[in-house]
Amino acid sequence: VLGLPEVEQGDDLAALIAAQIELEDHDIVVVAQKVVSKAEGRVVSLSEIEPSARALELAAGERDPRELEVILRETKRIVRERAPLVIAETHHGFVCASAGVDHSNTPHADTLVLLPLDPDESARELRAALRARTMKEVGVIVSDSFGRPFRHGTTDVAIGIAGVPALTDLRGTLDRGGRVLQSSLVAVADQIAGAADLARGKASGVPVVVVRGLELGAGSGGDRGAAELVIDAERDLFR
Amino acid sequence: VLGLPEVEQGDDLAALIAAQIELEDHDIVVVAQKVVSKAEGRVVSLSEIEPSARALELAAGERDPRELEVILRETKRIVRERAPLVIAETHHGFVCASAGVDHSNTPHADTLVLLPLDPDESARELRAALRARTMKEVGVIVSDSFGRPFRHGTTDVAIGIAGVPALTDLRGTLDRGGRVLQSSLVAVADQIAGAADLARGKASGVPVVVVRGLELGAGSGGDRGAAELVIDAERDLFR
Repeated sequence: VLGLPEVEQGDDLAALIAAQIELEDHDIVVVAQKVVSKAEGRVVSLSEIEPSARALELAAGERDPRELEVILRETKRIVRERAPLVIAETHHGFVCASAGVDHSNTPHADTLVLLPLDPDESARELRAALRARTMKEVGVIVSDSFGRPFRHGTTDVAIGIAGVPALTDLRGTLDRGGRVLQSSLVAVADQIAGAADLARGKASGVPVVVVRGLELGAGSGGDRGAAELVIDAERDLFR
Repeated sequence: VLGLPEVEQGDDLAALIAAQIELEDHDIVVVAQKVVSKAEGRVVSLSEIEPSARALELAAGERDPRELEVILRETKRIVRERAPLVIAETHHGFVCASAGVDHSNTPHADTLVLLPLDPDESARELRAALRARTMKEVGVIVSDSFGRPFRHGTTDVAIGIAGVPALTDLRGTLDRGGRVLQSSLVAVADQIAGAADLARGKASGVPVVVVRGLELGAGSGGDRGAAELVIDAERDLFR
């Protein structure tokens, strides 16, 4: 979606998006977390932050301790620390670098952008606002770039979802050999976020991408948001 | 790519693909690992496998110990075990369930499909064969569905790559605010594999997807294969 202005607190994202593109039923509107957060005012100014002793320790003289302080406030649990870098579990349960706190693409160098308080709610609200404005039934994904264990580089994932299944469950369907597929829970929303990122390009300033024509097929009934992608430590085979 | 036959050992994948679709320069041909492995004969029959004591232990009476034996042979290091489930680092350095050993979509219930010995080489060979046959310069990605820590569900990732960058490095480029982006190593090949999976559907029997029209932009010069996506434990912030 080209031609969007720089988003600021209080902006009506649905209005901005609808002004630039003619949406169709079943479109999936993928919105970068950063513009959602900015519209929601999830921005803090470093000048207002007083770093704690823990933030100073984590900053290790190599990073602004006020930034670490903001990260700590967004953190439920530190998963790994290699000062001044922190991998954190956020209050939502997402595990990502710096608890999702980011300072690129902000208009002022001394501001940080936080994740939305409830990205699924952000997605639901944007979906409802787009429906009200365009009379179209679209899905909405709020996406962010996350690193991951074991593999270099980030991929965009879904942190907020409405009107799109987070997972499609192909368990119980038959494969080509007529045998029942065993473990086929596919994180389609994450794949959609990643596909959208390919179209966007990180530095190109295109925070909204519309995915059109996707048919998700069987086992894709759910609409429980990105919370469904968060896995408990006990159930997580990889940790 | 519709209309591909069931692939068997010795099949010429390039010929099969070129018979079904008119490729264009810059297309990216995403091929499911399973058909690459089958064409390369990376299939074992359970009837030929004698399980070791360790395989019997891991099977825990809940899984065919011969399958665990095959998994152990594909394993460099067991990352997590929750018998009878195993997360393993393969000899290539990939971390995934069952060391990538799979038994769905095989013609016979007693056969297992292993990952290619060298998926980057598989991708290079397929790329060269497609070039020779079609005179087109395409990229090739060999993809597989991997689970991951912290998030439910699988996403398709690139395990073999030729003619496509594994990562695009936007570090040093400027964001919209004119500030230098800090950490912007994007695993584009994984995102392409995931996007292709959306078009394929796991049970639908479409193992080859062509991605057309993708512009990867700046910082996308590399062609060192999927090996570039493997991260050393020491450099991996997430473990």
